[in-house]
Amino acid sequence: MNSFGNIFRVSLFGESHGSAVGAVLDNAPPGIPLSSEDFVLDMNRRKSGKKGTTPRLESDIPDIVSGVHEGLTTGAPIMIMIKNENTRSKDYSLFREMPRPGHSDFTAQKKYGGFNDLRGGGMFSARLTTAIVAAGVVAKKICSPVNYKAEIVHIGGNIDIEAELDSVMEDKDSIGGLVKCTGINMPIGLGEPFFGKFEAQLAHIMFSLPAVKAFEIGSGVKAALMRGSEHNDCFADENGKTFTNNSGGTLGGITNGNSIEFSVTFKPTASISIPQKTFNFEKGRIDTLIIEGRHDACLTLRTPVIVEACAAIVTADLLLYNRIYG
Amino acid sequence: MNSFGNIFRVSLFGESHGSAVGAVLDNAPPGIPLSSEDFVLDMNRRKSGKKGTTPRLESDIPDIVSGVHEGLTTGAPIMIMIKNENTRSKDYSLFREMPRPGHSDFTAQKKYGGFNDLRGGGMFSARLTTAIVAAGVVAKKICSPVNYKAEIVHIGGNIDIEAELDSVMEDKDSIGGLVKCTGINMPIGLGEPFFGKFEAQLAHIMFSLPAVKAFEIGSGVKAALMRGSEHNDCFADENGKTFTNNSGGTLGGITNGNSIEFSVTFKPTASISIPQKTFNFEKGRIDTLIIEGRHDACLTLRTPVIVEACAAIVTADLLLYNRIYG
Amino acid sequence: MNSFGNIFRVSLFGESHGSAVGAVLDNAPPGIPLSSEDFVLDMNRRKSGKKGTTPRLESDIPDIVSGVHEGLTTGAPIMIMIKNENTRSKDYSLFREMPRPGHSDFTAQKKYGGFNDLRGGGMFSARLTTAIVAAGVVAKKICSPVNYKAEIVHIGGNIDIEAELDSVMEDKDSIGGLVKCTGINMPIGLGEPFFGKFEAQLAHIMFSLPAVKAFEIGSGVKAALMRGSEHNDCFADENGKTFTNNSGGTLGGITNGNSIEFSVTFKPTASISIPQKTFNFEKGRIDTLIIEGRHDACLTLRTPVIVEACAAIVTADLLLYNRIYG
Amino acid sequence: MNSFGNIFRVSLFGESHGSAVGAVLDNAPPGIPLSSEDFVLDMNRRKSGKKGTTPRLESDIPDIVSGVHEGLTTGAPIMIMIKNENTRSKDYSLFREMPRPGHSDFTAQKKYGGFNDLRGGGMFSARLTTAIVAAGVVAKKICSPVNYKAEIVHIGGNIDIEAELDSVMEDKDSIGGLVKCTGINMPIGLGEPFFGKFEAQLAHIMFSLPAVKAFEIGSGVKAALMRGSEHNDCFADENGKTFTNNSGGTLGGITNGNSIEFSVTFKPTASISIPQKTFNFEKGRIDTLIIEGRHDACLTLRTPVIVEACAAIVTADLLLYNRIYG
Repeated sequence: MNSFGNIFRVSLFGESHGSAVGAVLDNAPPGIPLSSEDFVLDMNRRKSGKKGTTPRLESDIPDIVSGVHEGLTTGAPIMIMIKNENTRSKDYSLFREMPRPGHSDFTAQKKYGGFNDLRGGGMFSARLTTAIVAAGVVAKKICSPVNYKAEIVHIGGNIDIEAELDSVMEDKDSIGGLVKCTGINMPIGLGEPFFGKFEAQLAHIMFSLPAVKAFEIGSGVKAALMRGSEHNDCFADENGKTFTNNSGGTLGGITNGNSIEFSVTFKPTASISIPQKTFNFEKGRIDTLIIEGRHDACLTLRTPVIVEACAAIVTADLLLYNRIYG
Repeated sequence: MNSFGNIFRVSLFGESHGSAVGAVLDNAPPGIPLSSEDFVLDMNRRKSGKKGTTPRLESDIPDIVSGVHEGLTTGAPIMIMIKNENTRSKDYSLFREMPRPGHSDFTAQKKYGGFNDLRGGGMFSARLTTAIVAAGVVAKKICSPVNYKAEIVHIGGNIDIEAELDSVMEDKDSIGGLVKCTGINMPIGLGEPFFGKFEAQLAHIMFSLPAVKAFEIGSGVKAALMRGSEHNDCFADENGKTFTNNSGGTLGGITNGNSIEFSVTFKPTASISIPQKTFNFEKGRIDTLIIEGRHDACLTLRTPVIVEACAAIVTADLLLYNRIYG
Repeated sequence: MNSFGNIFRVSLFGESHGSAVGAVLDNAPPGIPLSSEDFVLDMNRRKSGKKGTTPRLESDIPDIVSGVHEGLTTGAPIMIMIKNENTRSKDYSLFREMPRPGHSDFTAQKKYGGFNDLRGGGMFSARLTTAIVAAGVVAKKICSPVNYKAEIVHIGGNIDIEAELDSVMEDKDSIGGLVKCTGINMPIGLGEPFFGKFEAQLAHIMFSLPAVKAFEIGSGVKAALMRGSEHNDCFADENGKTFTNNSGGTLGGITNGNSIEFSVTFKPTASISIPQKTFNFEKGRIDTLIIEGRHDACLTLRTPVIVEACAAIVTADLLLYNRIYG
Repeated sequence: MNSFGNIFRVSLFGESHGSAVGAVLDNAPPGIPLSSEDFVLDMNRRKSGKKGTTPRLESDIPDIVSGVHEGLTTGAPIMIMIKNENTRSKDYSLFREMPRPGHSDFTAQKKYGGFNDLRGGGMFSARLTTAIVAAGVVAKKICSPVNYKAEIVHIGGNIDIEAELDSVMEDKDSIGGLVKCTGINMPIGLGEPFFGKFEAQLAHIMFSLPAVKAFEIGSGVKAALMRGSEHNDCFADENGKTFTNNSGGTLGGITNGNSIEFSVTFKPTASISIPQKTFNFEKGRIDTLIIEGRHDACLTLRTPVIVEACAAIVTADLLLYNRIYG
């Protein structure tokens, strides 16, 4: 289950404080230009260092280890690796004693019998999304001219995001947020019946990201309030263009050529500087946990490029898959 | 992509107006009692005939074709088949000319070059969920004592569901709804990192169902409005019980032993008796579509047992998968 | 692991003495003519009743349950079912006490804790190859004009097969045999690097059949005796035609457009009427096992059509897969 | 198709003359000691530099990039990378013009539209087997006490291997060979019905290796000559020990606790120094190809450790898979 996709297949490796994170990408078509420079823009969009994000700075220039020769993809698996450079050797043993609320500390220890790499969240770290963004860069090339654009709608319900951040950071707290993504130039026919539905695969990969609590397509949660006469997207022309887009761009799980529209809700960052009353598994009683260091006040800020990458990965896979129909 | 699951694997077949629908279930453990009677309760819950659902009546008693001997599962693939008995030979060719808004008519024809079985939606029909419910019956046995209970929260925002139905049916319209599902007696440790996250697989299978527009786990869309200090579920005891359950029962995508809590939003039924202005692909202009026959005014009414089945399928698969950890 | 193939995917179900055996076939392209009559020829080739085969007679006319509408494939999963009609209610409990040498009785009981259906070998029975032949009929249509022809080379080393059968049957014994298969009109480019090699997938499916002990491609076991200067197939023209075909039609695991040539060795039928000295697990000592009834003296006789079906399944899958290269 | 295995899953990357080759290994159990030193013995067994093998020398000390923390596996994907150090920048363009007989040059170019990395065979190179040996080291640890031992039976039919090599090398030719492998301490029950048969998976992975022309289990090609009364392995005791082992250690595709015994036939190295008459695709006529450099006179010499690795990979996967039976 460490892979996603049927044709364009992404397999991940790496941990937050190990030597590197990366991905193996199967079945990128041969002949696509690809170099390290192609990754700079999206990698920078994901990076921290801006207001509301942690000061952990990585150069994050990916190394293309295989699958590219003389600047072009060869058809062989593309292995992309991003070194971890700015890891700190801080002591994580406290989190075995007092697993952080909202983190994987507790479940990872239970699942792996304590052998998991707890440092920085190990393989559960959002650091892995670096590899997703890198995979997304390749996927976007495969997808073109399909183009996804993700944007933050609000954080904490506030569209004045700067103001909300100031308030949250002053309180040493964190805040959730909502990201909306639109895909244009969609072909008709992507997605397979039932388990292969376009939105099922989108939902799957979005919920693979850390901190996601909701995924909506088209009308989303509002659909529960709507009547059929309002929700139905009537056809407007011979290309399948519809007057409205409550479906979000699919019918029966298959793209209908209208824009893909979906939203992803992210929870607030779990690491906060505010002391928390939680169970101390060694002492056998409730204790006060103080998490040191600085953290993203709002992880949502970094996610638009990740959400785009995920959407592009699904789309690239289904575009290639669709070729089996000849 | 016609299968779901890594160990307990569900593969579907059948169409709405073909001779049968069904599923092949791989890797149900040997020695589980299973007979046709086991399906009656859940099949009846899914059935139509009640207020707000279509009058298409099927006996829907599944035939266990393989994998069971002397009343016990053998370890071989279980093939379950449900005959289609009450299909009408009505003419569906109108829907090639005027694909129904909100239906798969348009995309299915485009994808399959017009060879798709359009009758009753073919393989895109909600009739396939009969096979899902049947698979769920087996899954629930594997999961026990894990127990999922799904309930309708509201339809059209109205918790007086009877009243809402009356209003909608009077208008010959349809209405959406929200279903909430809770899973109890959850073990710790189900789910795999990244693409194997428990909620990612839940979301995937829920969006595989027809008419789903949103999936939320725990705090869901409200997470975007919350602060970390409010959202974090602090640990209360040595079993990992938390004071709150905003996470919805997973941490890092792995079950933490608290209840699983998720919601699924269904859109209003696409087939409505109200005339609709939509494109006539033969005439090359907007035309009025009148869909005859009677339809579910609110498909949400039938979905709780389907949602439970889906959750049980994911859980059965991950429970068996978890055994690889010894 | 109950499925084979990445695109054209075959999933099996059924047992020898259950109500039916069959297969679900995913991703057969839409628009292919398919009816029950198409199966008659190959089903008859597989059937018993001829000299050297058991007298179990089944009509073996497959029922196409889904995926075909008005005589054409729709793109939906094709479910094909073949009823078991001529099963006997004989007592198989002896084989729990004394597992038959060369049969799955012993391993199946150990693996499934005794819950396996022992009757007629259950899901381990060669009866499942009926479903393979049926799947092969569909695969052959997809593959066309690729055409596989399998023939018996010898049984027991004797090319006078009639004479060999007489001798073996007189001794109430059984005999092994060798089948050679040739595929013509092969396109260049089928197969994927490393684990996806054409011959790796052929070998996999052939060893999935009961009683297979060896698979050879091209020069086969003779390759160990050859020098490179003799084994290398030099190119003869611009189409990649080679002077010799020691490779058997692939280079680097990818078809090179020359004929596919491979051989499959089948062991002698394990069920023989000669008394056998083998362990009685109930009595805790060596005992004499007498297997009643009549059995194939040479199961190899039935296999050519099965071998062709398997080769066609691999080829259909890889032909469709190859379309991803655009 | 770039991965092998259902639970313990090996995904490959890299090319002969790229910067590295390697593998991502999913689902190695947590808590297994693993360090670079563990790889030295098997890597050295595979290495060239001995009589009959090429002088390309690599240190081949693998770098464990992820999945191991403080010397123990963590449960996260293990990424192992082996740098390519001794690659030469020689011109391979001749092989576009005149694809080497017996090599993937022709098929790879056709399949990848000429974008494939032709240098050293690219991803088709036997260099990839370095990653297989590395994966095998991990697999062997998971399998223990199951233990595979592979040995060369003969090369060119000669058991005096040294003498055969002298003769072949004097002629600037190459020679094929036969490797036999035995697995001891096998548990009962590995393998799944039909497509999951133990020997089907063994055959699949063995034919994934370059240059394999035949795979035999137990009696192998001799089974065609045998009678049932001779071939059947009668049970000798309550553990399932059999008097003979013509089956090679499986019944119905499931291990029966006896030794696994199989053989793999390798063709002679395709690269020979003898001039070859083959088609020149640029000149449009037969031409003389002279392959410079030195090559393995007998690639079989390097294969025993690779064959063991492959067998261990299959076994590790099926051992973990078997845990689903609880």
